[in-house]
Amino acid sequence: MQFQEQTSARIREQIQSSPLAILPLGAVEAHGPHLPLGTDNDLAEELSKRLAKRVNGWVLPTLPYGQVWSLSDFPGSLSVSNETLIRLLTDLGDSLVRQGFRIWVILNAHLGNAVAVKEAARQLYECHPDFRVFYFFYPGTQAAISEVREKPPVHPTYFHACEMETSYMLYLAGEKVDMSQAIDDVPDIPPESEVTPTPWSTFTQSAVLGYATLATREKGERVIETALDRMTEIVLQAKEDLEDLDRG
Amino acid sequence: MQFQEQTSARIREQIQSSPLAILPLGAVEAHGPHLPLGTDNDLAEELSKRLAKRVNGWVLPTLPYGQVWSLSDFPGSLSVSNETLIRLLTDLGDSLVRQGFRIWVILNAHLGNAVAVKEAARQLYECHPDFRVFYFFYPGTQAAISEVREKPPVHPTYFHACEMETSYMLYLAGEKVDMSQAIDDVPDIPPESEVTPTPWSTFTQSAVLGYATLATREKGERVIETALDRMTEIVLQAKEDLEDLDRG
Amino acid sequence: MQFQEQTSARIREQIQSSPLAILPLGAVEAHGPHLPLGTDNDLAEELSKRLAKRVNGWVLPTLPYGQVWSLSDFPGSLSVSNETLIRLLTDLGDSLVRQGFRIWVILNAHLGNAVAVKEAARQLYECHPDFRVFYFFYPGTQAAISEVREKPPVHPTYFHACEMETSYMLYLAGEKVDMSQAIDDVPDIPPESEVTPTPWSTFTQSAVLGYATLATREKGERVIETALDRMTEIVLQAKEDLEDLDRG
Amino acid sequence: MQFQEQTSARIREQIQSSPLAILPLGAVEAHGPHLPLGTDNDLAEELSKRLAKRVNGWVLPTLPYGQVWSLSDFPGSLSVSNETLIRLLTDLGDSLVRQGFRIWVILNAHLGNAVAVKEAARQLYECHPDFRVFYFFYPGTQAAISEVREKPPVHPTYFHACEMETSYMLYLAGEKVDMSQAIDDVPDIPPESEVTPTPWSTFTQSAVLGYATLATREKGERVIETALDRMTEIVLQAKEDLEDLDRG
Amino acid sequence: MQFQEQTSARIREQIQSSPLAILPLGAVEAHGPHLPLGTDNDLAEELSKRLAKRVNGWVLPTLPYGQVWSLSDFPGSLSVSNETLIRLLTDLGDSLVRQGFRIWVILNAHLGNAVAVKEAARQLYECHPDFRVFYFFYPGTQAAISEVREKPPVHPTYFHACEMETSYMLYLAGEKVDMSQAIDDVPDIPPESEVTPTPWSTFTQSAVLGYATLATREKGERVIETALDRMTEIVLQAKEDLEDLDRG
Amino acid sequence: MQFQEQTSARIREQIQSSPLAILPLGAVEAHGPHLPLGTDNDLAEELSKRLAKRVNGWVLPTLPYGQVWSLSDFPGSLSVSNETLIRLLTDLGDSLVRQGFRIWVILNAHLGNAVAVKEAARQLYECHPDFRVFYFFYPGTQAAISEVREKPPVHPTYFHACEMETSYMLYLAGEKVDMSQAIDDVPDIPPESEVTPTPWSTFTQSAVLGYATLATREKGERVIETALDRMTEIVLQAKEDLEDLDRG
Repeated sequence: MQFQEQTSARIREQIQSSPLAILPLGAVEAHGPHLPLGTDNDLAEELSKRLAKRVNGWVLPTLPYGQVWSLSDFPGSLSVSNETLIRLLTDLGDSLVRQGFRIWVILNAHLGNAVAVKEAARQLYECHPDFRVFYFFYPGTQAAISEVREKPPVHPTYFHACEMETSYMLYLAGEKVDMSQAIDDVPDIPPESEVTPTPWSTFTQSAVLGYATLATREKGERVIETALDRMTEIVLQAKEDLEDLDRG
Repeated sequence: MQFQEQTSARIREQIQSSPLAILPLGAVEAHGPHLPLGTDNDLAEELSKRLAKRVNGWVLPTLPYGQVWSLSDFPGSLSVSNETLIRLLTDLGDSLVRQGFRIWVILNAHLGNAVAVKEAARQLYECHPDFRVFYFFYPGTQAAISEVREKPPVHPTYFHACEMETSYMLYLAGEKVDMSQAIDDVPDIPPESEVTPTPWSTFTQSAVLGYATLATREKGERVIETALDRMTEIVLQAKEDLEDLDRG
Repeated sequence: MQFQEQTSARIREQIQSSPLAILPLGAVEAHGPHLPLGTDNDLAEELSKRLAKRVNGWVLPTLPYGQVWSLSDFPGSLSVSNETLIRLLTDLGDSLVRQGFRIWVILNAHLGNAVAVKEAARQLYECHPDFRVFYFFYPGTQAAISEVREKPPVHPTYFHACEMETSYMLYLAGEKVDMSQAIDDVPDIPPESEVTPTPWSTFTQSAVLGYATLATREKGERVIETALDRMTEIVLQAKEDLEDLDRG
Repeated sequence: MQFQEQTSARIREQIQSSPLAILPLGAVEAHGPHLPLGTDNDLAEELSKRLAKRVNGWVLPTLPYGQVWSLSDFPGSLSVSNETLIRLLTDLGDSLVRQGFRIWVILNAHLGNAVAVKEAARQLYECHPDFRVFYFFYPGTQAAISEVREKPPVHPTYFHACEMETSYMLYLAGEKVDMSQAIDDVPDIPPESEVTPTPWSTFTQSAVLGYATLATREKGERVIETALDRMTEIVLQAKEDLEDLDRG
Repeated sequence: MQFQEQTSARIREQIQSSPLAILPLGAVEAHGPHLPLGTDNDLAEELSKRLAKRVNGWVLPTLPYGQVWSLSDFPGSLSVSNETLIRLLTDLGDSLVRQGFRIWVILNAHLGNAVAVKEAARQLYECHPDFRVFYFFYPGTQAAISEVREKPPVHPTYFHACEMETSYMLYLAGEKVDMSQAIDDVPDIPPESEVTPTPWSTFTQSAVLGYATLATREKGERVIETALDRMTEIVLQAKEDLEDLDRG
Repeated sequence: MQFQEQTSARIREQIQSSPLAILPLGAVEAHGPHLPLGTDNDLAEELSKRLAKRVNGWVLPTLPYGQVWSLSDFPGSLSVSNETLIRLLTDLGDSLVRQGFRIWVILNAHLGNAVAVKEAARQLYECHPDFRVFYFFYPGTQAAISEVREKPPVHPTYFHACEMETSYMLYLAGEKVDMSQAIDDVPDIPPESEVTPTPWSTFTQSAVLGYATLATREKGERVIETALDRMTEIVLQAKEDLEDLDRG
């Protein structure tokens, strides 16, 4: 189901029979001492593969560069601007439409990309209202997370290299996690960080927001499978809608 | 040497000791019946790995989307505009400078990217004159190509899915080539194609420009190793220049 | 404390003694049968006046046009793009810096502006790291809202012309509310609306998301005063930080 | 006739019966010791209200930020660039068209906005040729001004915080003028100021260009009523043209 | 004094001894039955040559494409947008600064360019405050025009292919005028044309605004020499200012 | 055949009978001690005139400013960015389409413009697929050059102020060449110049790349006439294609 492994000669009819493309979107960003810089790319890629199997979609090559602001002054973080990312996604969307795709899942594993992804989806909607664009960032997982979590999150929305994200990696790409280096780090996040630009280097040196040592493969499985179920449900519904539409 | 597999915690000193990043840059583009859509990504990625070993550099995650114009109406081709690609590369270059990198090799395997890559390099040069940016597209291989080629090229500059490019793939990613599907196709390229916008669909249906059946792993090896030698030589010289500079 | 009511001749020293500007930012947007199109402008303006008194700041003229997407096809909604709004805010920020301001509160009462406001604040941070920009959208009110609310919200994040927002208006600009027209409308919001572009006209005809009839001035007072307390605390801390800085 | 005081529920048919919107456009800019920074906003707003009554139009919320270059280094001046202002106006124009408006009056009281307003009107004309956009800056008042003026203007085109503009304020917003602070200041404007960028701080410290002490409410009335007559005439003609058109 | 006829080898010291560049700026635009499309280019070029002689400046190659809106639907008119023209002029200005020029005269003979020229000059002023940019459009000629004119102008500001402009051509490039084709055409210009976008094709078919038959070489000489005197005076003053500056 | 020497009154039908415009495109750039800064403009202009005669086309006014990067720090070089040049050419192209032109030859004599010209042609192709845009830079001359050249080129693609370009000038604008100043200068061009931004000032002080002393009018004639033959052939074919199209 890897799009780029197909040949052009055979792909045309395949797009027609399954006009559904999945883009893994991640980032290169500091993820503490136990996770690699490419953690978000690994997560996006593995999730995309599993979703593709369930919904019979094509996995596009991973877009490995995202918008990294909060951790941009940590070693190893690379960033592209929101404006650039929006253009890149709308260019790709235009190409997909031209190629006959009708559903595009942007499977995003880096929260910093969320703004650009949503804006790109809206711009594509204005130009191609019939082209369905979905942007997923672990949808429908709130209950499952509450269920498995042993420690409360250190922040209502920030989520990084912690009990949960490490668990996701243990489940999806366990061979890339070095749990011997996992730490617990509960930063004192200043409340102003939600209302004024605040690089995370002002409150953490590790880039771990919480209890990475509590991560387990099982917790990851529970949440990730929930996300996959939810994404599958939404995408299959969209496919059915298309079929209904085609049947008139 | 895969940058994104490192952890942030360890990468800072590693950048200092080897401030050299290599970006594989390809495209998703029709490559005939015997080569996958991601051929240019495969080539860029493999070349980058081999160059990295020789020069002790870091391989960044592959940027798999490029500027595809001539073949954009072939099944499976995806494209981003020159303007978007220039922005993406300058954003990444700025990040690399901020992270302490001093040499950036953009290892490009898709000719359509050449304009954007050169423009981005020039813009970075204006902002960061001490940051060395190299853009490689099989440098120094003209003689080796003439030596191994059995059939003349079908065009002085176009080069696609042919005796040579297929040979590169056989050497660098042979498992992705299906020689049983290789064909010879010598299109009648109208001479105006060099002086007016001309989608290739006006002169070829296969996207193969020449004699793919003549490709061999050995031809590929001869040319690719020549390119690697040349790139190695240039990069090592740049590293020496930096050391000279640092010593004052 | 209305900035535009001052004369230039007297304002210079006044900026030096209180280098704190507050921008009311709203929108013109459908708000159901009982609230005016300018609801968000009224809220932003009244909140700004009250905050200004508490922190001794200047109220800039209200910026009454915001980014309206979800309700843009409702009668009376007017919209500017995110890109335009970002430019406008960064232009104003540059002017404020030039005029000697050191703290800028963007008091936003329209959720659709949040993306542009945050992006503008970050861009200003890159250019003027010592210029403090705060973006407020009812900060610190979660507990107070839970306390006063009689009915659960119809959606975890959407919030519009409902029990809460109507209560805010009753407290801050009661004369503009026509409670005789207030309705309860609990739309069936499709869960996909969070993962794909979804104009609200697909699930509501009233633009009321919930129980407007339950709104009271007292509920509004409770939440608004909490927000004002929180904003006051943050801004006074920023002023103290400046004074510390100036004293060395 | 304040647009933002209407509800969405009632506005649709009202737009159809009077598809005419009036935007007050001003600026925040130094206006000498006797006039507030928001003088242009006050003028634009009052003029808009009076015009709206005469032509049965809707007054949009005032856009209070304009392009201020010449006085940008005076205390209190705030500026947005021409480019930003053009985008903002075209975004709003697109929204108005979408909402069913057919005539848009941009009632501008700040000369520095004239370039952006005209450019925006032209760009809208290219996209929506049937949408009538008028840009007014005291049209048709030359004779009336000559008639009431006691002192000659200090410059053929510059006009600021002087006998005339102060008179306009006395008539339209007299409560905001402090005539006890009014001064006469006849700067020695270098003739090059018309042919090379020349901040006004090079020739005036007061920002008053002429004889503010000579201003009277009566002079203001004479000119402002003339402008209102002229604007009314043009707009009513445009409405009639529409009706003719609709009748075929 | 033609800049482009010099060699690079000799120009460096020449720029230092006369760091003054003059850009003729015109347009390709309909000019009635008796004047060529390139009239504004001819005028700009001839004026530039004469000014260069008087002030010892360099004449740059003519920029022959301008912003043409009002007459853009007349046969032969070519146009570039304001935005493009601004960029082009600022790019050139940056180059001139880099080359050591200190004074730049943009000698504009097409009124439609005035907005872009002024904006470009202001942008250059922000970046290079010591680089003097002058924008001339027949400065200081009002009295001379009143003196020679036999018929009143058909419009207070529009001026095109008429008694005056034709006279300028007769004086500066008489061989390009075909007086046998000159006509008088007094269009009924609707007063709204000053307050709403109005292509001139709505009121004239000839593009002649007035009495071309009354043009004479003598009238042209009177006005053009006045303009040249004025421009000379301003530029020589600027040169003296520079010398004063250099002497400290 | 000079477009701008025509009158609007007569040009409409002339465009219909010959809807073919030729734009001479050059640059202002250092060309050694024997050639003027405007060499590329002279060449583009003369070539355009001769081509126009052969194909019955209109010569537009020369666009004398191009993208100059490699020699931008040589005395006298002026540059506009690629982005500006692309916009300018697409604006002009849009105007030409609007005027009824159907074929546009961009006759470029400065290699640095090639990227912008090709990109502009492609963008125009997307908007106006039936508008034929040709970009010529001495097409079809390789064999003729090999034939007349006495010394090998100093570089496979760079070509500047040398045996060949000087010969072109001797043939097309001999009066502007000062052969007494011609020199031979064989710079040691570092091979990295093809793979990293390299201003030519790092390897040449003369801007002559080769043997200018070997230039002759005869060599120029041989190559230029070949180029003219080739351009003529292509353009006449395009005209025939149009006629075929019109005849259905």
